[in-house]
Amino acid sequence: MSSSDRILNAAVLGATGTVGQRFIVLLARHPMFRIHSLGASERSAGKVYTDATKWKMSDIMPEEVKAMVVKPCDPAHYAGCDVVFSGLDAAVAGDIEKAFFEAEFAVFSNAKNYRMVEDVPLCVPVVNTDHYQLVAHQRKSLNLQKGFIVTNSNCSTSGLVVPLKALQDKFGAISRVIVTTLQSISGAGYPGVASLDILDNIVPLISGEEPKMEAEVKKILGGINSDLSACAPLTDMRVSATCNRVAVIDGHTECVSVEFAGKPPSVEEVKQCLREYTCEAQELGCFSAPKHVIHVTDEPDRPQPRLDRNNGEGMSVTVGRIRECPVFHIKFTLLVHNTVLGAAGASILNAEYAAKKGFV
Amino acid sequence: MSSSDRILNAAVLGATGTVGQRFIVLLARHPMFRIHSLGASERSAGKVYTDATKWKMSDIMPEEVKAMVVKPCDPAHYAGCDVVFSGLDAAVAGDIEKAFFEAEFAVFSNAKNYRMVEDVPLCVPVVNTDHYQLVAHQRKSLNLQKGFIVTNSNCSTSGLVVPLKALQDKFGAISRVIVTTLQSISGAGYPGVASLDILDNIVPLISGEEPKMEAEVKKILGGINSDLSACAPLTDMRVSATCNRVAVIDGHTECVSVEFAGKPPSVEEVKQCLREYTCEAQELGCFSAPKHVIHVTDEPDRPQPRLDRNNGEGMSVTVGRIRECPVFHIKFTLLVHNTVLGAAGASILNAEYAAKKGFV
Amino acid sequence: MSSSDRILNAAVLGATGTVGQRFIVLLARHPMFRIHSLGASERSAGKVYTDATKWKMSDIMPEEVKAMVVKPCDPAHYAGCDVVFSGLDAAVAGDIEKAFFEAEFAVFSNAKNYRMVEDVPLCVPVVNTDHYQLVAHQRKSLNLQKGFIVTNSNCSTSGLVVPLKALQDKFGAISRVIVTTLQSISGAGYPGVASLDILDNIVPLISGEEPKMEAEVKKILGGINSDLSACAPLTDMRVSATCNRVAVIDGHTECVSVEFAGKPPSVEEVKQCLREYTCEAQELGCFSAPKHVIHVTDEPDRPQPRLDRNNGEGMSVTVGRIRECPVFHIKFTLLVHNTVLGAAGASILNAEYAAKKGFV
Amino acid sequence: MSSSDRILNAAVLGATGTVGQRFIVLLARHPMFRIHSLGASERSAGKVYTDATKWKMSDIMPEEVKAMVVKPCDPAHYAGCDVVFSGLDAAVAGDIEKAFFEAEFAVFSNAKNYRMVEDVPLCVPVVNTDHYQLVAHQRKSLNLQKGFIVTNSNCSTSGLVVPLKALQDKFGAISRVIVTTLQSISGAGYPGVASLDILDNIVPLISGEEPKMEAEVKKILGGINSDLSACAPLTDMRVSATCNRVAVIDGHTECVSVEFAGKPPSVEEVKQCLREYTCEAQELGCFSAPKHVIHVTDEPDRPQPRLDRNNGEGMSVTVGRIRECPVFHIKFTLLVHNTVLGAAGASILNAEYAAKKGFV
Repeated sequence: MSSSDRILNAAVLGATGTVGQRFIVLLARHPMFRIHSLGASERSAGKVYTDATKWKMSDIMPEEVKAMVVKPCDPAHYAGCDVVFSGLDAAVAGDIEKAFFEAEFAVFSNAKNYRMVEDVPLCVPVVNTDHYQLVAHQRKSLNLQKGFIVTNSNCSTSGLVVPLKALQDKFGAISRVIVTTLQSISGAGYPGVASLDILDNIVPLISGEEPKMEAEVKKILGGINSDLSACAPLTDMRVSATCNRVAVIDGHTECVSVEFAGKPPSVEEVKQCLREYTCEAQELGCFSAPKHVIHVTDEPDRPQPRLDRNNGEGMSVTVGRIRECPVFHIKFTLLVHNTVLGAAGASILNAEYAAKKGFV
Repeated sequence: MSSSDRILNAAVLGATGTVGQRFIVLLARHPMFRIHSLGASERSAGKVYTDATKWKMSDIMPEEVKAMVVKPCDPAHYAGCDVVFSGLDAAVAGDIEKAFFEAEFAVFSNAKNYRMVEDVPLCVPVVNTDHYQLVAHQRKSLNLQKGFIVTNSNCSTSGLVVPLKALQDKFGAISRVIVTTLQSISGAGYPGVASLDILDNIVPLISGEEPKMEAEVKKILGGINSDLSACAPLTDMRVSATCNRVAVIDGHTECVSVEFAGKPPSVEEVKQCLREYTCEAQELGCFSAPKHVIHVTDEPDRPQPRLDRNNGEGMSVTVGRIRECPVFHIKFTLLVHNTVLGAAGASILNAEYAAKKGFV
Repeated sequence: MSSSDRILNAAVLGATGTVGQRFIVLLARHPMFRIHSLGASERSAGKVYTDATKWKMSDIMPEEVKAMVVKPCDPAHYAGCDVVFSGLDAAVAGDIEKAFFEAEFAVFSNAKNYRMVEDVPLCVPVVNTDHYQLVAHQRKSLNLQKGFIVTNSNCSTSGLVVPLKALQDKFGAISRVIVTTLQSISGAGYPGVASLDILDNIVPLISGEEPKMEAEVKKILGGINSDLSACAPLTDMRVSATCNRVAVIDGHTECVSVEFAGKPPSVEEVKQCLREYTCEAQELGCFSAPKHVIHVTDEPDRPQPRLDRNNGEGMSVTVGRIRECPVFHIKFTLLVHNTVLGAAGASILNAEYAAKKGFV
Repeated sequence: MSSSDRILNAAVLGATGTVGQRFIVLLARHPMFRIHSLGASERSAGKVYTDATKWKMSDIMPEEVKAMVVKPCDPAHYAGCDVVFSGLDAAVAGDIEKAFFEAEFAVFSNAKNYRMVEDVPLCVPVVNTDHYQLVAHQRKSLNLQKGFIVTNSNCSTSGLVVPLKALQDKFGAISRVIVTTLQSISGAGYPGVASLDILDNIVPLISGEEPKMEAEVKKILGGINSDLSACAPLTDMRVSATCNRVAVIDGHTECVSVEFAGKPPSVEEVKQCLREYTCEAQELGCFSAPKHVIHVTDEPDRPQPRLDRNNGEGMSVTVGRIRECPVFHIKFTLLVHNTVLGAAGASILNAEYAAKKGFV
């Protein structure tokens, strides 16, 4: 029996935080996962979830977790879990996630700590599931049977790589990308951005975000080396990112200019390419894979966060304003739901994929 | 006696609109101008200003205009006015402004209609007052003695050209610019942007704004032809603009990447260059010229609209986040007060300059 | 066969407006209604819906309406419709709705025009479905067989009457109510509230809203006269409403102080009363009736619009902060989804009720 | 020489916080005070002010404080200071303020700690400067020569008492008041309200605010006992407050219904009474006293925070929508600038008054 035919027990680490809450909302209505364990810091451990958490989702807290007792983030307490989702803060994620995958758990992490490790898949599940090939090397080098870690990307990266992947597959190498983001406040967690900083205002810096984007894009759009032991990030692509925080609750908007290494496509060819893009997770029938990976809009004033962030249940990237760039070749504006495809949703689809492919 | 030593009578056309209101606020506290006449559409003409206007400024309506009777926009009613400021809508500005400058008025317009006419100065007064040399040709070709028109630029253009001018003067030609703007709602006037479009949202299109920016930058940063009869826009600079509307009341933020044609300066050289930039309007002692044309900030998360838009009373451009661009040479983020330097304030400084130089 | 067992053909008048769009979203997923016809002004009539409409819902436009041709609002074009939902502007609703009910259609209106007519039910369907008894008189006086009109209340009224009804039923007459509302922008339609009026701001007036609330509450909480020919509004209750517009997208918040005519209940008795309140539409198994008419929260800082407006799919009223009032007896804060229970949702539940009871 | 003729040296305690920053902005342009010392917590003490502070004012940081070294809040370091302004958090204000007034400093505090002490003036300086008569008793009981403490009220209280005082003086006792507030985020300091709590949202609770308002109003509008040893709060007035946090940066809006004990005035009489209200601080020519204590507006949709909060440089209360209340006698909506008259501005005017009257 393939693991994709059975219900998998899922743990959520960092369950009281905003990413953890989003994991819980998505898992509670998921046909394949059952929420088995909730882990959080020592301060929360031992409390009933409803007491440990300041719930900030607009979806009501699922009944099934209300009375669950929060556990400490120690693998000893997670016997029976098939997959472990980590919404932990980077400050603690490194040690805790290591403890879990070394204890033979399948870890799907939203934290940044292991993203750039060369045999860790940095996987946007509608883009580069081929990077799962690194798992074998990971296990071998750590002498593990079942344990491994797969990370998803930074939220703004996850939006950007989707159309770039489609374009690269169809029209060949992309030589230069300049991207400016307008990122929502939910990306900063809770309490996160102070209201005095964002009402009638913009914060033109998101600390550490720009180098993350610039590096992650090259890893995700790159390949795997020949012995499947390490990723091989793109070396000929140059990426420049500028990241801003704006007064939007959910949904990162990104304005992108793209230069192709070879003959550039026309605007119509780009539109068609993006519309036709599909991924392996769709072909496998993964539950969370969106019907359309990319939602292309021809309306001149879209995408808009409030109207488009839930396209494909938050798992689609919406691309609009596709037009010629007077400096590079093509420019467009994209929108990604930062806490769904940009965070918890990506981890969950990564886990679905892993199950379908027998990694779990 | 030079006209800069006397009080000039000023008319404001489009006085009931948002640009007109800003003109009134700025003129009411101006030592050189007295508000002499207020012009508006037929619907408002004949009414007392306070009845004709839905006042939307946070500054209280100046006492001196409250009881003024609004006039129709016909030059016949403006005898005695020395300068005419136009905050008219583009839909009507073309004919009305023409009537005024042909009637020998000095017209300072915020409308787009005449901006790209080759012998009309498109003047950001801290950047290219040398374009006033076109006035002589304008008068000659229209057979005018005193009348002329000077326009200021689109609000987002006015922020962008200021640091570009400083850089171009110091480091030579700029070959490529990619700019993404985050523009405030006041730029759209009143009622302007619907609240349902901008709360928890971004509108990724400002109709007509991108081509305007791309063209105006080249005219402003360009020169004048040898017989002083036409401007000579830059032909070797390529500019790509993407314009977004965000939930900010005043102040346009612009994220800019710049490529130089020649040897690029270092980040430190750029900072120094911007800090040291001065303009002729300052040297002439114009009242509205800011102490610092460019306010350079080293704080990593600035400029911010709410905190920095009033730098230099709204006449400075604030530039921050100056750093190397992985794709071009230098990138930075700037902020301009869109209704001051970006609109009414620029027109007024243009008029001050004109008076100092004897054009009025 | 009762009409509640079959699919009913529904028309939406004012289909391009915001209330109309909400009707369409709710009807498209409704098991009992099929969208049969869309009506709008002459300007839209004849166009395909997707061309006639600036869609502003965060739910995607339902496939089934995209290609429908919008009709003029003339009953001649609506043969085959079982129920007619009106989201028309008050400026035109009077004549059009009259034409429809006189043409023997069952009209469920969100407009204010007929609300205070004495034999027209002003029905918040979780509160006063007993007012349907007026329909017989309405038909008789107009000499109609099947046609009639039922209206729902103003959006802010619909939230207020729900807990008041529960309290009145349990603890007897309420003598005085002072209510201050904080109403969302969607209540004003599109374009509605200008962003310059509501960002970093409050508008302390909603034109006509306060007298509407004060009058509607008394009609809804009142009875029917003995010959079932007219409603009998409460005469001994005094209501004072103050209505504000705030920067919230959906959901009206209302701060309410209540004085009872007789012995006042304790805070705990109030909570229990509100928790236990049920309505006839629930008992009949109406699809849109919420599981809990009133969602009582004990969390000290709730209800909050963003977190609670979708309780009961927008058909519940959330009540929190129930406490003693130092001036009257009890005070509390309530939240109602102004475009669901406060508008389209109420009309739809009214129609469900009418079908269950054989009026349609 | 009266102390009002000389420059007074002022200290600001809590100088790095938001109230402290507002103190600094107001004092820097004040003709009577010179900023002599800045005090803050141990964490900031010893640092240069510009390094110790995350400046959040839209006014630029005054030059004169940039290089000042922040001191610990110990009276030993404040020799030479004539007045001490406290913007300290309540958590530490109790002990520190006590140390200062016992060390013979004149303390003007914005903290809540001493507000309800019976011989401490709780003074809104445009309302009840007569409470300064308590200072003599305070000094006597503490055996002080020069030291004393005067507090200003909670920010929402300060707006409410102004029109109530005017009405009470003119029309006699007020028996009942129901007030609902819509308070700005700056009232919560920095970082204060999380943006996720207030964008597209309302928080219907401000912890501790309602009882504070209800008690402070009665003390401020009350008198002093016959031997001038204690305040005599009103006992016959009942006040019910409901406090909400909304997405406004500065300015608290309050919706007020008032019942008079005796014959109620007409709406016109109320307007006239509010317009004519003056206070002793005005008569003494205090610098910060507004020209109009109450700005009465007849515009139907005012006051609005963004447009009216700076009336009287933030020291006026704006009152609009004055109308009959169907439940009580009169209702109206008021606006107060919460960090000016509601905080730092009140303390400063209190100090001006004290100087004029010889207390300093």
